[in-house]
Amino acid sequence: MSQEIPYKIYLSEDEIPTQWYNLRADMKKKPAPLVNPATLKPLTAEELSVVFCKELVEQELDENTAFVDIPEEIRNFYKMYRPSPVVRAYCLEKYLDTPAEIYYKFEGNNTSGSHKLNSAIAQAYYAKKQGLKGVTTETGAGQWGTALSMASAYLGLDCKVYMVKCSYEQKPFRREVMRTYGATVTPSPSNTTEIGRKILAEFPGTTGSLGCAISEAVEVATSTEGYRYVLGSVLNQVLLHQSVIGLEAKAALDKYGIKPDMIIGCAGGGSNLGGLIAPFMREKLRGENDYRIIAVEPASCPSFTRGKYAYDFCDTGKICPLAKMYTLGSGFIPSASHAGGLRFHGMCPTLSELYDQGMMEAVAVEQTSVFEAATMFARVEGLLPAPESSHAIRVAIDEALKCKKTGEKKKILFGLTGTGYFDLVAYQKYNDGEMGDYIPTDEDIQKGWASMPKVDL
Amino acid sequence: MSQEIPYKIYLSEDEIPTQWYNLRADMKKKPAPLVNPATLKPLTAEELSVVFCKELVEQELDENTAFVDIPEEIRNFYKMYRPSPVVRAYCLEKYLDTPAEIYYKFEGNNTSGSHKLNSAIAQAYYAKKQGLKGVTTETGAGQWGTALSMASAYLGLDCKVYMVKCSYEQKPFRREVMRTYGATVTPSPSNTTEIGRKILAEFPGTTGSLGCAISEAVEVATSTEGYRYVLGSVLNQVLLHQSVIGLEAKAALDKYGIKPDMIIGCAGGGSNLGGLIAPFMREKLRGENDYRIIAVEPASCPSFTRGKYAYDFCDTGKICPLAKMYTLGSGFIPSASHAGGLRFHGMCPTLSELYDQGMMEAVAVEQTSVFEAATMFARVEGLLPAPESSHAIRVAIDEALKCKKTGEKKKILFGLTGTGYFDLVAYQKYNDGEMGDYIPTDEDIQKGWASMPKVDL
Repeated sequence: MSQEIPYKIYLSEDEIPTQWYNLRADMKKKPAPLVNPATLKPLTAEELSVVFCKELVEQELDENTAFVDIPEEIRNFYKMYRPSPVVRAYCLEKYLDTPAEIYYKFEGNNTSGSHKLNSAIAQAYYAKKQGLKGVTTETGAGQWGTALSMASAYLGLDCKVYMVKCSYEQKPFRREVMRTYGATVTPSPSNTTEIGRKILAEFPGTTGSLGCAISEAVEVATSTEGYRYVLGSVLNQVLLHQSVIGLEAKAALDKYGIKPDMIIGCAGGGSNLGGLIAPFMREKLRGENDYRIIAVEPASCPSFTRGKYAYDFCDTGKICPLAKMYTLGSGFIPSASHAGGLRFHGMCPTLSELYDQGMMEAVAVEQTSVFEAATMFARVEGLLPAPESSHAIRVAIDEALKCKKTGEKKKILFGLTGTGYFDLVAYQKYNDGEMGDYIPTDEDIQKGWASMPKVDL
Repeated sequence: MSQEIPYKIYLSEDEIPTQWYNLRADMKKKPAPLVNPATLKPLTAEELSVVFCKELVEQELDENTAFVDIPEEIRNFYKMYRPSPVVRAYCLEKYLDTPAEIYYKFEGNNTSGSHKLNSAIAQAYYAKKQGLKGVTTETGAGQWGTALSMASAYLGLDCKVYMVKCSYEQKPFRREVMRTYGATVTPSPSNTTEIGRKILAEFPGTTGSLGCAISEAVEVATSTEGYRYVLGSVLNQVLLHQSVIGLEAKAALDKYGIKPDMIIGCAGGGSNLGGLIAPFMREKLRGENDYRIIAVEPASCPSFTRGKYAYDFCDTGKICPLAKMYTLGSGFIPSASHAGGLRFHGMCPTLSELYDQGMMEAVAVEQTSVFEAATMFARVEGLLPAPESSHAIRVAIDEALKCKKTGEKKKILFGLTGTGYFDLVAYQKYNDGEMGDYIPTDEDIQKGWASMPKVDL
């Protein structure tokens, strides 16, 4: 193929995938099932249906169907901001003076600012289809909450977001985006729930935590007629919906005969990485093609590289299903000096199993080097990346620099999950030279593991 | 043409225009020349070259060349974020239940968040080509400053931005974007300039004004070896560069045989409107086609609808060239309760002349109705618009609702200049029901006109 590769490879709207791809279908050894924290037995569809809506429970539990039709209403919504481009980072290549070809799949061109919208619209759609009145969720910095607010507004669904109190107060802008989309945003802990009142009574000055916000959102969903809870990462259903990222990326690259040598994605809960790698991992699992697949996580929250593979709680409140995953322990809390997202103590079970099987690598990077890469990327590629995405940028740059040394013309694909427009406080810290690195000690991680559940299936 | 129209019409990268279009070439009666505030005579190229770089002066004064080649380096930069899509607002049409077809040209998919980047890269390019070290400019909310910082970073040019002090302090996020792109951002008034020190001595507590920031930026440019001043709106050269908006929009619509009945754009200094309408106005000026062209301005700063057409100062410091334009007087300052941009007291001379010739209409809208339209648009179209752009949305919605009454299937094109991600303070005000409207009295405007220059060419 000698066809000239444009800066941005766009598919046409009718090339938006008509089906999502379910990674688990091609895994010989499947990820371990979710477990009920009360009975310590695998969760049944019935049990899950109290929390999640029906069709999402089916998707969550179905490990055999490889391709799932994307309903037309969701595809129509996708058309408002998809297909998202695969961008050839010509300027970055030139700046680095590398023989490598660098491509990134850019998911930030929508008001939620990230890939989260891909699953938000799907989850909201099934809730609406089931005749529900609304959905509840939690949000930290607000990316997922924004995405869910947008999807809910589009479908006329009520949306209740529990936002970690310190973010609610210190990051008012995403809160206002959510309110503009008609969502009710409540600082957590709040006195609107039993668990919130309990925590407030116990710790009157608390600024909240993601774990507490999850517990409040789940309580409201399970105690309010016509509501269910939705979650933006970790779950199998989320990986399924996010496969649209990878499917589009592969189709775009295929048009120009480009086969990436490596695929790099940042990993917090795993929603972006799982989506991006989906069709490539499929070929790898089926022995049709080989790819290096690299998960990048923050050195301050290194679940893959320093976690253990075991059943653990997903929330600090310990009311959510248990998952077998790489985990730092539900008691682990990343340093407050850690700027971006990617703060989850565990990792999506499907990716955990693939990592355990040696199907992918993981690398941990420190935040000042992440912001150095982010700033370089912004200046030469003209796009201010989210701190989360910049973890992948860091490793893509490192790999391109290795190629510079060896002269290899490797093809690098990475996921640029979103924009940094609501992360300027972190950029300011970096610009002012006030950003540090934080690497947990072995003792910190041991502490995180202190209260692991004992599951024996 | 019965071809189905996609949600987003994208041109390919090789369809990015190779030439800008200069509206003045097709005007029989040309806009009045810029005038030297000292001599009250038309400015010569030599005089202008002290402030602006050479090729930009040529573009500024050339009223006969219709098409100007876009240098390849600029086109390559354009490829990083252009072509920008023409979007069919299917969801808005459905929501309004209108027979009208609504299209918008979306310029917000780049980190500067607006169309400003189109001219920033051009001005920075010519500065670089002339061998200059850097450029200076002023910025209010920061859109233009951000765009210029990005362009300067790309070309390795120094960029000094004077940012109105109250914005510098109250809107730190755009400031941080500029710093991330390596710009020096100075709160104005500052003690880095003579005029700044003078103003600080006279008004120690001042929070600054755009007029003062312009004066500081011009002083630095004219007193520092290797620097020139650049401006993001009002000038002919800016309209020339921004014609890329309209040229792309027309090419995209032509592909599907769509001829808009009306073209709607927000108007502050006129950079977006002049760019959007360029190729349509060309056909109108040449009698080849007719279009309704509607400028939308804030009722709180209504230069077209309530200004007078006369020579006036462009800055409050009265050191910049005088321009013949629709103006509320350089002494006019829009109410502080006015949330968005579009705060310039005058209007680009070319558009002023076209308005005076009856080639376009103007309408003024109040800000609460603008934010009502913005919120509706965000919810149904999934995109949070800038307050400036939302002026055009308001009128597009109003026109679509008229069509609903009459049953007419009019085709509406409007310019969506940017995103509102850095305008959440204004959205919060609206969400909290604390936003008011402000319409200046005739007396306010008379006051603005108090110190008009007397120019007699």
